[in-house]
Amino acid sequence: MPSYRAPVEDTLFLLNDVLAIHRYDNLPGFSEASPDVVEAVLNEGGKLASEILAPLNLSGDQEGCTRRENGSVATPKGFKAAYDAYAAGGWMGLSVPEEFGGQGLPHVLNTAIQEFGSGANLALSMYPGLTQGAVAALLVHGSQEQKTTYLPKMVEGAWTGTMNLTEPHCGTDLGLLKTKAVPNGDGSYSLTGTKIFISAGEHDLAENIVHLVIARIEGAPSGTKGISLFVVPKFLVNEDGSLGERNAVSCGSLEHKMGIHGNATCVMNYDGAKGWLVGEENRGLNAMFVMMNEARLAVGVQGLGQSEVAYQNAVAYARERLQGRALTGAKAPDKVADPIIVHPDVRRTLMQIRAFNEAGRALILWTALNSDIAHRSQDAAERQAAEDMLGLMTPVVKGVLTDRGFANAVEAQQMFGGHGYVEEWGMSQFVRDARIAMIYEGANGIQAMDLIGRKLPKDGGRAMMAFLTEVQSYIKDHGEDEAMQPFVAPLQPALNDLQAAVMWLMQNAFSKPDNAGAGATDLMHLLGNVVLGYMWARIAKAALAKKAGGTDIERMDAKLVLGRFFMERMLPETSLRLARIKAGAETTMALPAEAF
Amino acid sequence: MPSYRAPVEDTLFLLNDVLAIHRYDNLPGFSEASPDVVEAVLNEGGKLASEILAPLNLSGDQEGCTRRENGSVATPKGFKAAYDAYAAGGWMGLSVPEEFGGQGLPHVLNTAIQEFGSGANLALSMYPGLTQGAVAALLVHGSQEQKTTYLPKMVEGAWTGTMNLTEPHCGTDLGLLKTKAVPNGDGSYSLTGTKIFISAGEHDLAENIVHLVIARIEGAPSGTKGISLFVVPKFLVNEDGSLGERNAVSCGSLEHKMGIHGNATCVMNYDGAKGWLVGEENRGLNAMFVMMNEARLAVGVQGLGQSEVAYQNAVAYARERLQGRALTGAKAPDKVADPIIVHPDVRRTLMQIRAFNEAGRALILWTALNSDIAHRSQDAAERQAAEDMLGLMTPVVKGVLTDRGFANAVEAQQMFGGHGYVEEWGMSQFVRDARIAMIYEGANGIQAMDLIGRKLPKDGGRAMMAFLTEVQSYIKDHGEDEAMQPFVAPLQPALNDLQAAVMWLMQNAFSKPDNAGAGATDLMHLLGNVVLGYMWARIAKAALAKKAGGTDIERMDAKLVLGRFFMERMLPETSLRLARIKAGAETTMALPAEAF
Repeated sequence: MPSYRAPVEDTLFLLNDVLAIHRYDNLPGFSEASPDVVEAVLNEGGKLASEILAPLNLSGDQEGCTRRENGSVATPKGFKAAYDAYAAGGWMGLSVPEEFGGQGLPHVLNTAIQEFGSGANLALSMYPGLTQGAVAALLVHGSQEQKTTYLPKMVEGAWTGTMNLTEPHCGTDLGLLKTKAVPNGDGSYSLTGTKIFISAGEHDLAENIVHLVIARIEGAPSGTKGISLFVVPKFLVNEDGSLGERNAVSCGSLEHKMGIHGNATCVMNYDGAKGWLVGEENRGLNAMFVMMNEARLAVGVQGLGQSEVAYQNAVAYARERLQGRALTGAKAPDKVADPIIVHPDVRRTLMQIRAFNEAGRALILWTALNSDIAHRSQDAAERQAAEDMLGLMTPVVKGVLTDRGFANAVEAQQMFGGHGYVEEWGMSQFVRDARIAMIYEGANGIQAMDLIGRKLPKDGGRAMMAFLTEVQSYIKDHGEDEAMQPFVAPLQPALNDLQAAVMWLMQNAFSKPDNAGAGATDLMHLLGNVVLGYMWARIAKAALAKKAGGTDIERMDAKLVLGRFFMERMLPETSLRLARIKAGAETTMALPAEAF
Repeated sequence: MPSYRAPVEDTLFLLNDVLAIHRYDNLPGFSEASPDVVEAVLNEGGKLASEILAPLNLSGDQEGCTRRENGSVATPKGFKAAYDAYAAGGWMGLSVPEEFGGQGLPHVLNTAIQEFGSGANLALSMYPGLTQGAVAALLVHGSQEQKTTYLPKMVEGAWTGTMNLTEPHCGTDLGLLKTKAVPNGDGSYSLTGTKIFISAGEHDLAENIVHLVIARIEGAPSGTKGISLFVVPKFLVNEDGSLGERNAVSCGSLEHKMGIHGNATCVMNYDGAKGWLVGEENRGLNAMFVMMNEARLAVGVQGLGQSEVAYQNAVAYARERLQGRALTGAKAPDKVADPIIVHPDVRRTLMQIRAFNEAGRALILWTALNSDIAHRSQDAAERQAAEDMLGLMTPVVKGVLTDRGFANAVEAQQMFGGHGYVEEWGMSQFVRDARIAMIYEGANGIQAMDLIGRKLPKDGGRAMMAFLTEVQSYIKDHGEDEAMQPFVAPLQPALNDLQAAVMWLMQNAFSKPDNAGAGATDLMHLLGNVVLGYMWARIAKAALAKKAGGTDIERMDAKLVLGRFFMERMLPETSLRLARIKAGAETTMALPAEAF
């Protein structure tokens, strides 16, 4: 039976030593996040994940969700009680403003807790996860009345949220959407249409479900310019806040999916359902993007979470499974064979996953911290810089962390041999669950296009230039530091590769946009590799400082080894990515469609 | 509903134009394989795969196998009729000697048919596939009586075969096995023990099942030196060849697996089952290796098969799915959006899979041809050279083609967005089915160790030297040929990387074997990349010749583009692999086991 232990110590190290979040005590919520509060929050959140959520992961996968004839949906055994514990702990509102029942703590803390939930039980944690996305959208674009009506209930977990974008004929290309909204004359609208792939669209965990739905108001322009966002509750809400009649929105069926069986993925039918406009008419995509950007970061976190839990279980297996002898002579001569952790190829696998996980966690927390600064700083320049970095890193966090998270789950499964293929061992589930994160909230190819087509050229390339400058300065600042050489020296050629890629694209992609499209995925991974390398350099610096202070020597030594492993074996991928980008689109686009 | 079309044309091109198998007309069986026979065989085999096997793939996955209370196992609906058609076509014995009911044709043809079966329906094709492995072992190591008793029935498909190696506590490390064989005094043995992960261990497709089982004869040495191979039929065979009493071997349970649900993966209980020694006492591993080597190639073929079927369905989807507009302007202005095949990132995906598939198919057929030469040539030197190449390429075919085959299935699934995650579309099944090929018949890490620890140093490195020389000569021979430059010029640095890796290992791995272990997987993929590049050069040459002859211009042009794509974007991976190998084992092995 697989298990999960939240990486509380590593997260604390990243928050306190690497990112030094106490430097931001001037931001709202940060002074409340004193070191002891942070530690208590992470410990409690970790306990919830390990003890309440994780034990339901495998059983939730095996049982799945069931749609009853009346359209109601039953979640797997135990999910309701676990969800209640999640809600009761106040986790949904950790970083929501206090006026709506939240705790107003930094989003970076919330992100750490999201990782624990995603690692422990992805399917279950999606219910509160989607609620948080809907809360974020309503906070920014909802009217005061909408906020008062929905947010407190969602924050306390009595109601959950969803986002309804996809239709059978349109996923990425939302301009094609057909769901129709007709004004009722009383400020409300009647929505009619079919939405698919709606995660947590119907379930038995909460009293009400608050659907955020994009639709086209009758007579609105076609394409993306005529899309509006609506809030459509499953049960209408009376003026006193109590639940009224059932709205005309229902779950038509559940999808049979490869994984996340414990989360209900619904076809949602809107049959003249009553909804209210959120934000401005025809500006729905804009409003939805708040939710989507939030969700994209959360999905990147899911990739990391699955990579972490797969790693932990692979380590446990590698320590216990006896098979063969070490190449350098028996390590456990008293046993019939050595534990497989002695074998270099097994080590390579574990080192590779962990070297990714620790830097990936740093990247996620750094990005969440930038989100906090972008939303909470009083300093316009600081806000803008943080906003730039947040925008640039969002597709990287989503795309790279889910691609690699999945690949890592596969590698971890591989270590189990045939047992990895048998469902009872749980490794197959990690792979199947991790797979969705590469797809939803914009498939990773779309993330790559977002990076190369929007984030890179935005404001004359300001964000990318800032990142290149930041890393270059970091290398320069540590050029004289002997102990930092193994970390900053290899970073320079990697940064050069990134710079060369950006230059090449500037010269070759404006005139021939296919050159951008053909290199998009490689640029995303190239930037990902460099930023992970940068995170490792920062981790190494903090580890060296801690060692110098005489604390935690062994754990810090391990980090220095992991960092060197990353630099030697993973970072050099940048030159392959660059070669591919520079190959351009010619051969990629040469064949006529019929030749495939 | 997914579909499959056997790549008959491409296979014919590889056999006739690239490998020119008619050059081997002097070998037994090859003169019978005239061009028209080859074409007829491939067309028939392709039809069987596309029309009989493929339509049962998705339903077989959804239904799976069922063990009844009496221990019998039901395969999915339609499997029996399809299996009968497979058997009736004589496919099991395509390359088995005529004296045992086979057709004696080259193994290279059989390999092509294996690909078609694996692509169409992996779970179903495993039943005859395992039979072929068992036939191969009995052909080499069985007594005349055993051959006469079992082979004709297996070749005609009335009986199937299995291989029983794994036990709960031993997979890779077979020296730990506990299954016991006690002599009965009449030449037979009583076998007692439990075997797990036995594919096709019990089913309702055939009258009898011939288990090949490794066990330790009472009093035999411990470890791998005391392992013997036995033939243990499900029903004992009377002297007249009719079936006698039920043997004491039974299926205790079925595994719940990630994929290949249509194949029964059994726990097999041997409760004093009657068996007969195959080959010599305590030389069982030796005998089993015949079967295993055969099986490893067949598993590599499975990786390719899944990659091909995933590719075909992704192409169909990319042509139909309308979403977004081409970066260079609308390509289907009459439609609401362009088909996604216009998008460079979609193209990149398709090109990458296909550039792998065509070279992978060439590698598989080239290796199968070497197997034919090694087994059928009268010329000792020719035999040895072919045997060397076969041995060197076996771990590459198994390891690289299944790693990449799986990765390609994942990439193809990705193109479907959310639909790829929904089981009805079939893409999830390709991913789940392809996953097993990386694991069974020796997990890919074991293949890498086989390459670096056995195949590379064997006979003073003779096989690797021969390969390096062959590719170097090829590059030299085509150095003056303008049209071949895009293919041979990039091959040189890749070959240099391989050479450098081999040199580095010679200097650094003998004294420190961990340096070999830590670089094993990278060496396997480095060699794989070079040999795929070499295959592309040979394909390009044949394509240029065909074009010069004025035939098949468009198809050949497509191959030249695919070959260039491979050279530009895939082959440069060799330098990353080399960098990792040269990093050695230091950081990989530095952490104590507790630090993970």
